[in-house]
Amino acid sequence: MSGKARMEIAVYPLCTTNTVSQEVSKIFDILDTCNLTYQITTMGTIIEGPYDELFSLARELHEVVFSDTVKRVVTVIKLDDRR
Amino acid sequence: MSGKARMEIAVYPLCTTNTVSQEVSKIFDILDTCNLTYQITTMGTIIEGPYDELFSLARELHEVVFSDTVKRVVTVIKLDDRR
Amino acid sequence: MSGKARMEIAVYPLCTTNTVSQEVSKIFDILDTCNLTYQITTMGTIIEGPYDELFSLARELHEVVFSDTVKRVVTVIKLDDRR
Amino acid sequence: MSGKARMEIAVYPLCTTNTVSQEVSKIFDILDTCNLTYQITTMGTIIEGPYDELFSLARELHEVVFSDTVKRVVTVIKLDDRR
Repeated sequence: MSGKARMEIAVYPLCTTNTVSQEVSKIFDILDTCNLTYQITTMGTIIEGPYDELFSLARELHEVVFSDTVKRVVTVIKLDDRR
Repeated sequence: MSGKARMEIAVYPLCTTNTVSQEVSKIFDILDTCNLTYQITTMGTIIEGPYDELFSLARELHEVVFSDTVKRVVTVIKLDDRR
Repeated sequence: MSGKARMEIAVYPLCTTNTVSQEVSKIFDILDTCNLTYQITTMGTIIEGPYDELFSLARELHEVVFSDTVKRVVTVIKLDDRR
Repeated sequence: MSGKARMEIAVYPLCTTNTVSQEVSKIFDILDTCNLTYQITTMGTIIEGPYDELFSLARELHEVVFSDTVKRVVTVIKLDDRR
């Protein structure tokens, strides 16, 4: 059974002079279309929901940062899950 | 398109007197049945493969640690992905 | 020269049935006596200040969680530093 | 009293086209001059020693990556400490 969990995710584009903030708007667009509760902090995004959806969202947030000028992405995820 | 990526994952059972090593054998079983290259370090497990499979594996490794005595799990994931 | 930086820290007591919240009050006491700006989130604490003071504070927050019943502590730190 | 601990650290230069490997040699130089046991993995460096020295080393490894072309550094640290 899928319980409620909390995930924090930070996505960093590497080897590019793109600023992180350029990527942040893409991330906002995805968060806006998902139905989960989220909070943006200065260090990442905290999202609450079933852990299945959190993993799927993490995959999407990681993917969206790649572009013609971004060929390497480091993503740090912390998942805190109580059942 | 799915590229090759590297993931490091560490799974911590909280609020239990179970030792982390008790959980580690469950994690080994899952790693053994997946077809990805992995390396166990003293701080976690490093796995290489398509990022889709990495996310799916992460979800499974996080899940397996829950049990009758483990009701809270913190998982830390670092994904480094070059395309 | 010491620049301004942002640190996120989460401290997890392992191999204990102590809840994380029991430890959180000790962490609050330390944060209250330091002169840095901080924000508590559901996933950790975000603190801003010169990176020297951040490292010294991280060391203290990690240390304070050890006790007679807490013999193992995992601390996760993310430091984001612009100059 | 200072116990033995294990730290994993990964240092990422952001907003630069410098590759991470350019920074890695600076990190090796520091590791070589410290007297602690370390292991380089594909995802970071694992170091064992008294936690006081680990924090001090982390501070140094984070600092060394800054340069004329590197003005932002993200460092991820995981500390696992048993007493």
